[in-house]
Amino acid sequence: MGKPAVILLSGGLDSATALAIAGRDGFDLYAMSFRYGQRHAHELECAKKLADAVNVKRHIIVDINLATFGHSALTDQSIEVPRNRAVADMSGDIPVTYVPARNTIFLSFALAWAETLGSTDIFIGVNALDYSGYPDCRPEYIAAFTQMANLATRAGVEGKQKLTIHTPLIQLTKAQIIRRGLELKVDYALTSTCYDPDETGAACGQCDACQLRLKGFAENNLKDPAPYRS
Amino acid sequence: MGKPAVILLSGGLDSATALAIAGRDGFDLYAMSFRYGQRHAHELECAKKLADAVNVKRHIIVDINLATFGHSALTDQSIEVPRNRAVADMSGDIPVTYVPARNTIFLSFALAWAETLGSTDIFIGVNALDYSGYPDCRPEYIAAFTQMANLATRAGVEGKQKLTIHTPLIQLTKAQIIRRGLELKVDYALTSTCYDPDETGAACGQCDACQLRLKGFAENNLKDPAPYRS
Repeated sequence: MGKPAVILLSGGLDSATALAIAGRDGFDLYAMSFRYGQRHAHELECAKKLADAVNVKRHIIVDINLATFGHSALTDQSIEVPRNRAVADMSGDIPVTYVPARNTIFLSFALAWAETLGSTDIFIGVNALDYSGYPDCRPEYIAAFTQMANLATRAGVEGKQKLTIHTPLIQLTKAQIIRRGLELKVDYALTSTCYDPDETGAACGQCDACQLRLKGFAENNLKDPAPYRS
Repeated sequence: MGKPAVILLSGGLDSATALAIAGRDGFDLYAMSFRYGQRHAHELECAKKLADAVNVKRHIIVDINLATFGHSALTDQSIEVPRNRAVADMSGDIPVTYVPARNTIFLSFALAWAETLGSTDIFIGVNALDYSGYPDCRPEYIAAFTQMANLATRAGVEGKQKLTIHTPLIQLTKAQIIRRGLELKVDYALTSTCYDPDETGAACGQCDACQLRLKGFAENNLKDPAPYRS
């Protein structure tokens, strides 16, 4: 039996890869997903399949309603998901798909679960290179969360082993992430990246997330195995 | 119209006082409570009445299920709430009523709401003096959370005004908190402190929280106006 680790698993390409890396590193896998008011539940179906595929010890889906707060194209139907933006334009301003404090909320729940599991390891598939527009994907944010977390819990007070937040993808390009995942046999056909898939789960191919993903596969001279609508 | 502030409102004595202080300071009040799998919903009834009593702009109750994780007497029915411990014994180890990462989760949601409201002020009624057993009530924890929060959000990235987490009670004794609240006309009959009230909301008078509260009123030579079971 390995050490337990909590892995934030959205069902997307990045978190599927982070899950595979945690498995390769010998951790017992505890995967955590969120039903948070996102536009579509398709990514949660993907998360379930991905968790099954690697035999996690447990997969939980936590219900929280971030749509209460709105202010993001991912949780507010009245804000449109941007389409066909050039990849070069994506790294400036914070995009409308940013969900306020989402990673902070997700990591807080992961921290709670880790504490009850006696785990000191959390994996999150954040990426600062290909999507620098999100404030809560930056290395300095992760470092600050770790410092806070080590003061927040029993382990922190009792001077036990410190928490590590593993961000194995943070400095990789999308193409590098895909290469890493394929070495670890991640089935990317099971992952969902699109901000606005149709009811069958087929991706749009035009939102920022689809474009970055397609570029990553193209740079590896590969065809993305996930379904796209034509 | 004042500046908006988010106030974490449990329905207890401390958060009721923090709410009154935020009102005195001229903020527009946005109160936030949680249905988190606690043993009893009575404190949420109290939170509603307290919010009404000070004319908050909005009061929301967020549903999250921390009972999924268990490991606390407050969310796990199989763990007993300690009774009749001497107050002097309460400040050593972390008690079984500690809920893993609870304040981190609560503050993360407050951060999300604050960001969507354009608010840079969050109030939390934590107290480090009379209850030093909880890791996430300490000043160093609050400071670390603030630092993290300022890296987590749009405002942090864009260099706008920084977040302040107000902890007006952190260095007060329970007796001082009560005195402060009475000056601000807090109706403590509307607050619920007990870890294990009966179905009418009457407090047990024996758990750690009741004992600290009763001691606070006694030190002010006052009778607690909240109902106790006999």
